[in-house]
Amino acid sequence: MYRAKIEVSLKPGHSDPEGQMTEQSLKELKFSANKVNVSKVYTITFEAKNKQDAQQTIEEMCKKLLANPTKDNYTYTIEEEK
Amino acid sequence: MYRAKIEVSLKPGHSDPEGQMTEQSLKELKFSANKVNVSKVYTITFEAKNKQDAQQTIEEMCKKLLANPTKDNYTYTIEEEK
Repeated sequence: MYRAKIEVSLKPGHSDPEGQMTEQSLKELKFSANKVNVSKVYTITFEAKNKQDAQQTIEEMCKKLLANPTKDNYTYTIEEEK
Repeated sequence: MYRAKIEVSLKPGHSDPEGQMTEQSLKELKFSANKVNVSKVYTITFEAKNKQDAQQTIEEMCKKLLANPTKDNYTYTIEEEK
């Protein structure tokens, strides 16, 4: 069993309305906040034959479902679960 | 200037509909996915006098806005930006 943590974030230049709203709310609460970006993390437990297979599976999951290639970047870490 | 990365995730036992939907979609695409959790990461650039002040600011941001103490856990890392 493997566990992957995948972070999907917007590519630079794409507008991040949730980040903008959060920045505005922080300012209203009198915090100094110069820039806020929001991204999403998927923690997925899944079966794979080995580390290489696990990595390939995660790449496919990102390309087919989790990330939009036009506007999203993704990074991930994978570890084996005992 | 400091930059914090804050991950806000649901406490165990709280339902995660987005994770459940993602798990179902992955299964429909014939992936093996045993468990999916979704959390949110805020990347915030802000002013602080020193590292201790930065940490205190982030704690306050989490408590006042970013995390709901009833259902969310949060973890963060802070680094100084040159």
